Parts: sequence; C-alpha cells; structure tokens
Amino acid sequence: MDAGAQMQIGDSGNVQLEFVNVTHSIIDAINPVVHTPEGAIVYGLDKRMDHSPVIGDPIDMKRFREIGREGNGVLAYMEDCTNAGRKGRTPSESVARRHLKDVLTSVEDYDGGIVATTFSSHIARVSSLVEFARDIGRQPVLLGRSMEKYSGTAERLGFVDFPGDVGMYGHRKSVDRTFKRIMNEGKENYLPIVTGHQGEPRAMLTRMGRGETPYELSEGDKVIFSARVIPEPTNEGQRYQSEKLLGMQGARIYDDIHVSGHLREEGHYEMLDALEPEHVIPAHQDMKGFAPYVDLASEKGYQLGRDLHVTRNGNIINLVE
Amino acid sequence: MDAGAQMQIGDSGNVQLEFVNVTHSIIDAINPVVHTPEGAIVYGLDKRMDHSPVIGDPIDMKRFREIGREGNGVLAYMEDCTNAGRKGRTPSESVARRHLKDVLTSVEDYDGGIVATTFSSHIARVSSLVEFARDIGRQPVLLGRSMEKYSGTAERLGFVDFPGDVGMYGHRKSVDRTFKRIMNEGKENYLPIVTGHQGEPRAMLTRMGRGETPYELSEGDKVIFSARVIPEPTNEGQRYQSEKLLGMQGARIYDDIHVSGHLREEGHYEMLDALEPEHVIPAHQDMKGFAPYVDLASEKGYQLGRDLHVTRNGNIINLVE
Amino acid sequence: MDAGAQMQIGDSGNVQLEFVNVTHSIIDAINPVVHTPEGAIVYGLDKRMDHSPVIGDPIDMKRFREIGREGNGVLAYMEDCTNAGRKGRTPSESVARRHLKDVLTSVEDYDGGIVATTFSSHIARVSSLVEFARDIGRQPVLLGRSMEKYSGTAERLGFVDFPGDVGMYGHRKSVDRTFKRIMNEGKENYLPIVTGHQGEPRAMLTRMGRGETPYELSEGDKVIFSARVIPEPTNEGQRYQSEKLLGMQGARIYDDIHVSGHLREEGHYEMLDALEPEHVIPAHQDMKGFAPYVDLASEKGYQLGRDLHVTRNGNIINLVE
Amino acid sequence: MDAGAQMQIGDSGNVQLEFVNVTHSIIDAINPVVHTPEGAIVYGLDKRMDHSPVIGDPIDMKRFREIGREGNGVLAYMEDCTNAGRKGRTPSESVARRHLKDVLTSVEDYDGGIVATTFSSHIARVSSLVEFARDIGRQPVLLGRSMEKYSGTAERLGFVDFPGDVGMYGHRKSVDRTFKRIMNEGKENYLPIVTGHQGEPRAMLTRMGRGETPYELSEGDKVIFSARVIPEPTNEGQRYQSEKLLGMQGARIYDDIHVSGHLREEGHYEMLDALEPEHVIPAHQDMKGFAPYVDLASEKGYQLGRDLHVTRNGNIINLVE
Repeated sequence: MDAGAQMQIGDSGNVQLEFVNVTHSIIDAINPVVHTPEGAIVYGLDKRMDHSPVIGDPIDMKRFREIGREGNGVLAYMEDCTNAGRKGRTPSESVARRHLKDVLTSVEDYDGGIVATTFSSHIARVSSLVEFARDIGRQPVLLGRSMEKYSGTAERLGFVDFPGDVGMYGHRKSVDRTFKRIMNEGKENYLPIVTGHQGEPRAMLTRMGRGETPYELSEGDKVIFSARVIPEPTNEGQRYQSEKLLGMQGARIYDDIHVSGHLREEGHYEMLDALEPEHVIPAHQDMKGFAPYVDLASEKGYQLGRDLHVTRNGNIINLVE
Repeated sequence: MDAGAQMQIGDSGNVQLEFVNVTHSIIDAINPVVHTPEGAIVYGLDKRMDHSPVIGDPIDMKRFREIGREGNGVLAYMEDCTNAGRKGRTPSESVARRHLKDVLTSVEDYDGGIVATTFSSHIARVSSLVEFARDIGRQPVLLGRSMEKYSGTAERLGFVDFPGDVGMYGHRKSVDRTFKRIMNEGKENYLPIVTGHQGEPRAMLTRMGRGETPYELSEGDKVIFSARVIPEPTNEGQRYQSEKLLGMQGARIYDDIHVSGHLREEGHYEMLDALEPEHVIPAHQDMKGFAPYVDLASEKGYQLGRDLHVTRNGNIINLVE
Repeated sequence: MDAGAQMQIGDSGNVQLEFVNVTHSIIDAINPVVHTPEGAIVYGLDKRMDHSPVIGDPIDMKRFREIGREGNGVLAYMEDCTNAGRKGRTPSESVARRHLKDVLTSVEDYDGGIVATTFSSHIARVSSLVEFARDIGRQPVLLGRSMEKYSGTAERLGFVDFPGDVGMYGHRKSVDRTFKRIMNEGKENYLPIVTGHQGEPRAMLTRMGRGETPYELSEGDKVIFSARVIPEPTNEGQRYQSEKLLGMQGARIYDDIHVSGHLREEGHYEMLDALEPEHVIPAHQDMKGFAPYVDLASEKGYQLGRDLHVTRNGNIINLVE
Repeated sequence: MDAGAQMQIGDSGNVQLEFVNVTHSIIDAINPVVHTPEGAIVYGLDKRMDHSPVIGDPIDMKRFREIGREGNGVLAYMEDCTNAGRKGRTPSESVARRHLKDVLTSVEDYDGGIVATTFSSHIARVSSLVEFARDIGRQPVLLGRSMEKYSGTAERLGFVDFPGDVGMYGHRKSVDRTFKRIMNEGKENYLPIVTGHQGEPRAMLTRMGRGETPYELSEGDKVIFSARVIPEPTNEGQRYQSEKLLGMQGARIYDDIHVSGHLREEGHYEMLDALEPEHVIPAHQDMKGFAPYVDLASEKGYQLGRDLHVTRNGNIINLVE
C-alpha cells in the first residue's frame, strides 16, 4: 500500500485505513490514518515537516488539512514527542544537503584523505554524499555492513540510482581490500562513506580511529560526521572516544552536518492547526518528553484529562461514550 | 494554630485540620492535613526534609508516617514539584551554615570590606551571618527595606534573638548614615548584610555596585552571596550585571553558599514511602515541572489517570465514588 | 582602495599595503596585509571562510596561499579568535539563506502576520528576506532607524538593488504610519523586516512585543529571528524578555536562522595551512578566548614564547633582531 | 622530611628545600619551596585552602605570607590551575563531612541496604564514612582492592585509627565471602564502603550494579556517591551506565557529596596576595585551563611575557639575567 492509498479494514464496511505521505530521515515514510464513523484516528509516527525533501515527495499537509475538516473531523491524534521541547521548526533535508555541499566544497582543494559518515538508513544523505564526492573529484565508496545493506536495498527498490561504479562493501575482507586499493591509488581520489557516526566501538570509523584498517589517516585528513550525537551519556562517551582516536591520528573533525527527523515545537503547532483533533494523545516518550507537548497543546486550548490524554503503553482511553 | 495542633472544621463533626511541622527557607513552616472519614488529604507545601535545621524543629517525618498508617490512610497527597527533577536530596540548612562559616573563616584575616547578602526572609541564614560576623571580629548590620522588615518581625515574634547592638536600617537616609559611619570607623570592623542577592536593580547591593551609596568598595573586598540565582534568564541577566558592577570596583565574589528550600527526588521518594497515599497529585508547576515527579511516582507503582493525577488549577478531580 | 588593490606606504619605497578580499556578515570586507622586506604582516580581521557568499566574491584563499609562499613568506599573522573554540567550520551564508528560505516556505500558507528581524548591517540577509518575502506573496518593508540607514546606504553604494517598491522607514512617525497601513490593508500581505534581533529594549520588535506600535500581533503570528543571541547574560535576559512579550501576544518564535561571521576551528586551521606564518599572534579576545586558538596552533607545531605570542593591546613584540 | 622542615640541597650551601603544609584530598600534602639567593621558588602542587580539614593541620597560610615577605621574597611561583575557572572558593573538607553526615542521618531509619563509595585515597572521607556508619547503627566494611590498600596503609602509617572491627577486604574471594555474610546477617546492619565512584567498569560498585556479587540490591536501597564525576565524556558515560544498572535494581542515588581538592578563583587570589611573587607560571593544564588563571593574574597587575609566563613542559624560562 503506497502513500495516498486507502483500504477497507474489518468487516463493518465503514472503517478505512489510509496512508498519508510524510517526510523523515528514511525514505517512503507514511503516517497511518483510520477513518471511522466517529471520526478519523491519526497516528503520528516519526516525521519532519519537509517541503523540499531530497528524495520523495513533500509532506502532504494538504491531505492532513482535509482530514481535519471532512466528515466528523479527527477524533483522536497520537503524536511522537521526541523533539517537542525544541524551539522553532526542524529544517528541511535540503538545508542539511546545502550545509554538506558547503563543507565538501570547502575541502575541495585538500589533497589528502577525506572520510564521511552518516546514518546508513538515511538514503537521501548517503545519496547527497555520493553526489558531492564526485563534484569535488573523488570516487565515493560505501563501506560497512549496514551501509552496504541499506544502500543496496534502496537501490534494488528503485528509491535511488547510484552511478554504476559506486562500490558498496560490507564484509570485512572486501572492505579491507578496498582500503588497500585506496591507499595504493591515493587517498586523494576517494571519499569513503562509512558506518560509525555515533562512535559505536565496532563500526568502521571507530576501527579506522584505532588503526585497525589498512586506511591510514594522516595529519590534516578530514572526517565529516553528517549526524548529530544522540544525546545520551553512553553514546556521548563513545563518540568522544572515537573523535579522540581520530584526532590522535591527525584527523580534523567536521560534525553536526545534519537535521533531525522529528518535529519541533512549531511543526507540532502546525499539525494541530491542520488536524484540529478532538482528542490529543502525546506518545513515544516518558513524561519528561511529553511535558513540552502538553504545554503546547494547552496553549492551543486543550485541557489535561478532558481532551488531552497523558498515558502510557497498555492503558486504554475511552473517547466515545 | 501551631505545628502539631488540630482543629475541627465544618459542621459535620468528622473533619479535622492538622498542621504538621516541616522545614523550609522560612521559619515556622507547616503542611496542612485534612482528616476526613474517607482518609487524610495531605497538602504538601514548599519544604525541605531537614533533620537539623538551624532554627526550629526538624521535619516531623514520624507524624507523616503515622498519618500514612492510621485510619483510612492518606486518600490524596498534593505535592510541590519545584525541584523534583534534581537528583539526590536537598541538604540541611546546617550544611549551608557550615559552608557559610567556612567562607567567613577563610576571609577572617582580610582587613578591608566584606559584605554579605541573602534572602531577607531567610531568618536562619541571616542569624548565621550575624553570628559568624562576630566570630571573625566584625559588627553585623542589616541594611535594606525588606532586611529590616523581616528580621525585625522575626525578632518581635521571638523566633530569633539578635544581640542588642545589631543595627537594622531600612530607610534610605538611615542606611546612608550607617554606611558613612562604617566608612569613618573602618570597613574592616563591619559586616553589612544587605538586600540584592538576585541582582535586583534597586536593591542595596546593586546600588553599592553602581557606587550610589557612601560605602566604597576597594580592590580585594569580598562580596558573599548566600543565595543561588533563581534560574530564569531575566534574573540571570540582572545578577550578572550586578556582579559585573561589583567586580569593576574590585570586589571578589563568593556565591552559591546556599541550600534550596524544596525537596529533590529522594525527598519526594521518602515522602511517598511515609504517606503511602492512595492518590497522588503533583502541583505548583507546569507540565515540564511535573514530569520528573510523575516519572518518580510511576517507578513507585502509581499510574497516570488511575491514581496519579496531572491537572491544573481550577480542575476538579473526583476521587471517591 | 578595493579588495585586491595594493598601495605603497611610507617613504622607504619597499613597504606595500594590500587588501585581500574576505567574507563576513557585512559586505565588502577585506583583511589588510603589509608587505615588508622581512616578510608579510597579515592582519586577520573578522571573517568567515565563505566559498559561496550571497553578495560579493568568495574569500580569496588563492591569494592568501600565494602570500604564504611568495618572497619571504609571512613574518607575522594576527587573527581574531572569537569562535576559535567551536568545532568544525562556520557554514556559508548560502546555508543560512537556504535555511531562511525553508522557514519562509513553511509559513507560506499562513494568512496572518509574519515579522522578521536580523542584523541591520547584514545586507545579504536583509536582501534574502526581501527576496523570499516576495516568493511567498508578501510585500517586504524595512522598519527601524538602523534598518533604514544600513539598507539605504548599501543601495546608494550599489551593493544591493532592492525592488523599487520596497519601503524603508526609520522615523517613528513614518514607521507608525506604515504599521497602520499594514493593519488596514491586511497583515497577510506584508513582511515587516525590523530591528530588535537581540531583544534590545528600544528596538522595533521589542516595542511590538510591548504593544507600543499600531501593528497588532494575533495568536499564531510568526516571528522570525534570523540571528543568534550573542551569548552574554545581559543580552540573553533581554532577548528572553522580548520573546516572552511576543509570546504573550500569541506569536510563534522561529530563531537561530543564522550563521556566524567568525572562523571556527577548521577555518583557522586552513588559514594557518595557507599562510604558513613564521609568527602567530592571536587577537581580539581575552585569554579564555585565545586558549583554543593557542591549543590549535600548538597542534600545528607553534610554540608559546617562540613563534606563538600571547599578548594584549599596547604590548610590543619584537620579531626581527 | 615533614611539613615545616627544611634541608640544604646542592653544594653551594645557599639553597634550601622547604616543605610547607597544605591541604588536599589526600593526607600529608605539602608544597615544596626552594630558597635561593635570588628569592624563593614556590611550587604550588594540588591543594585546597582548608582551614578546618578533617585529618591533619590547616593549610599554613602564615608560612606562605612569611615566605612572600622575607629575604628577596618569591622569585617565581608555579601553580596548578585545575579549578582556576570556577568562581568563589573550594569549601573545606569539613563542609563535605557535614553534608555526608546529613545524608546518612536522613537514611538512618531505612531498614534495607545502604552502600557508599568514594576515592580510596581520600582517607579523611573514608574515615568520616566509617564514623557516620556507626552513628546510624551500621557496621562499616571497606571493600575493593584499592580501598583495602589505601586505608590499610594509612592506618599502618598512623594517619587514621579505624575501630578494630572495621573489616577491609581487597581480594575477590574475601570480598564475596563478606558480601555473603552481610546478606545472611542482614543488609540493614552494614554499610559497605566500596570502590567504583567513577563507574569504572571493573570496580566493586559497578559489579554490584551488574549483579555480579552476592550482595543483592533491593527496591529503595541507597547508594551514596561521595565523589563528583570527573568531567570528561568517557567518564561521564561510564558513571551514567553504572547508575543506570544500580537504578534498574531499584537503588536510589545520592551523589555529589564532595568538595574538590583544587583551588578555585578566590583561593588563587589569596595565594597571590600571600606570596606576592615576582614571576607567576601557571601549570598542570593546557591553554584552556591556564586562561582563567592568566585573566586573574592580569587583574592583579601581572603582564603576559613580562612577569606572567605561559609555557609548557620542557620549555625553559630565564628569570634572572
């Protein structure tokens, strides 16, 4: 079932499932809506409100607005609150892409090693990296198990069309063979795009930092993190160690070249404006995560316990008497 | 009605109001409890769990535990959540007192000006300042309108007994006259205890920083903030400016010599242990402030919408059917 | 004297002054270089390393590299250290422009008031705001004393060519008359671009927040800060208050749509690579600001007291014996 | 050689080494001073300015002041800058002790497990823990290799005299045997004082968190960190994980019950006042660490390159011509 499609569910004949196109850090993201005689149930999964995504269509705000106004409107709206406490709006992927292009352009004249890392599942970003590598005269090559898996799958499914000569290698042996080839032919001709953006101890970039691969970093080589550290101390500790190791080998770090895949405060505000739901149910967080969303919904006139429901997985809320 | 006392309220004859002794940054603090046939209603106003306060009795945890176990136990417990998100427990006032003594002892040999500021309403702290001033051979003097008002009232009500020669001056003229006397007789003989701990633009210490009083600060003079900046940007901006002004006149700043008057996480944990309430209602905050308290109560088995109620002023929660 | 030009200075006949084109938050920025028989003296004023600025030419890195290699090379290099402690590189103005376009596109369908603010002297940003206002079907209008002054001057000097119908008003009376016209003709047709990005108490946006202008903010109106708060508590306090006032009138805040005008760590690294100076002298900061720059230069082999000189205004450093 | 003692060094007959008593997180700390005909060289090793340490004598400020004024005064003063950027002064160990007593008193009525951890080398703190354990009716027991080593050594050297029945166990087998005994006789009778205050993966407390010891934590058990996390991401990650593991077993965390062993800004100010050195040389840090010290010394009239020397290990500074 594609974004935009509907299908009947259940036997009653009056319940429809619809997929509405949204934009996120992965491709082909949707939010499901269940149309019932009492109104629509909108299940707001992870998304960014992106009007100029790099791959795929913009978020379908027009459809959300229609759903808010047609029939009995929206009975209930559940929403992911991951970034609800951050001011403003999440920038479009096209902003991250422009930022990334800027960074790569700035190192165009550098004649040593440049390495990039990002989320393997973030096909739009990987695709931008592949494109910009060529713009600065380097051959991109995807390295690491999940990098090979995700990009290979995206290509087979037709979401992206990498140039024929872009190598993807996941197995240790073929990765090492590729690194040897890069070292032989000159690091200045390649842009390895590798796993390890969070400093995961076994990922490719961390192994490069520890000197466990045939790729040798030299003083002044550039390492580009097209990702943000997920803000949790274990993670931050690992990423810090990874950067330390890379730095000890002379690498220069460019980080935070990224945009989040989750709505911030103004995105949530606009979703509430579009859907005008009768009941709102924040989701996907603990109470600390719900808090800014609840404060936002309260500003828009919702009231806790009446039409704004803070609950946790497993609880049942009875909306219709 | 004193802490520990009870009185009948209403006409039914079976509803009692009780005041339980607690500890806070002000003297003579209590938490009210209403005993009803359905159980007790505990209204948890601002408090610290202090077993060795400087003035007054320790918090009456024994009574809270009794209330939790006698009759029908506690039907509902409302609690102030100001510091619920801070780990550990709020230290006793005796810790702030020990810290303050340490700071004053460390400047005992200094032969220039020393000035202290704190909350005017914090009689225990003002009293410690008065005591330690004498320990280091200085005459304490209380300056500023609210400093005079609170300390004077506390003395009249018998909560504190300052030495007879401790001056208290609130009016501009008498303050200025006192400052002139201090300058004439030697700054090294006095410890002015003044208003202005938050950098309030019109408070005494801020005026001293702007050079608007006859008290002249010299290079190396010590200014002691026995208070913490209330964490709000307007406040922080004012306090920053006040410290800048004082610093430009040569003053050295000692700050954060303070303990909060509000329970932190482990204090709330112990209150829930003592009261074992049927229903819990966090209060005195917006949702961001409730969040850590709700997470804590959930760890203890309470469940939102069942026996843990997040609401706001004006809402009615029906606990008994 | 334009960027790229040289002129003789002094009577010796062998000292030349050159202006090298750089990129900054203002237009037409240069860094002066003095060529002497002992080598070049490069005075690194405020700049960003921008390869795709919105107005004017990219930074002339080619010329800096030449200066580093021609004749006796660079004898001494002074550099502004404002952002030396921030990782990575400062993004290009084209990234801020893309971000700004994204924000304005996202509110294209909003049919109420939208207001933007930025540095009056930042002509490239003001110019982007003017352009995107029209893209979303609104008439831009520049309001506030310094907004009128800077934009008017830039236009007269030929750095920018605003459409003929873009109004610029600085005097209170003409501003108020403009606001009245906007309210009469419909807020949805205009994009006021105003002063007040730091929450300055007397700037236009702050006055709008206090309700002192004829422009009435309504629930849901958008306020766009294309600026970052200068990180200093007084400032932060003012900006916080300004946002609070705007929020109380219903405004939604979009902030941090900005890039700095100062080099970060990797920009400094590249400048040192290009110039290969014999002596390095960090400038424009106190010691806390120099510290990360000194650490960076040390990584590149410079040594404090030998060829890396930490000093302060008024001191003389003797580089040639 | 004890604090206060002097000895001749070298053959010239006019160079003396003196040890001046200071206070630090370890016992018996001194700062060495070398008296030369040109003046004294004061080497300021790690210290806190403590006028009421729990073990040993207060810092000998009187002697530092004498050294500053006798003979040719102080030619050069090197100082550790670890905490030079923190405002105010480092509190006395007696403040940490009072805080610790407060925490242990607050859990006196708890009838389950209480565990404490601190720096093994911090004999004063361990000694306070042993004392307060008994005050709340629990038998203290020291567990972990370095805990046994340091406390055993301190006792043999006569710095501390633990009660005869305080067990100290370092070897895995004897530790496990002790834990089994505690579990059999009742956790409520003991206070294990263990290694692991930084969340070190192999330390005792971390092993307890992972359930690798016979000591079983229960819901509500208290874990007291009489230490602060050393602010470095790897460390913070480890400590976070340790606390998570302990929390998953139900433990309640009390942390930051500690004072630093390093001078803050006002301690440094007072040392400069006491010594009045001709030359000042900040030490033990990189440039970011020196920066606040340099700013402080500059406020006191020192000038970089003249009598304030920022350098690094291995460099030679020639102070006397």
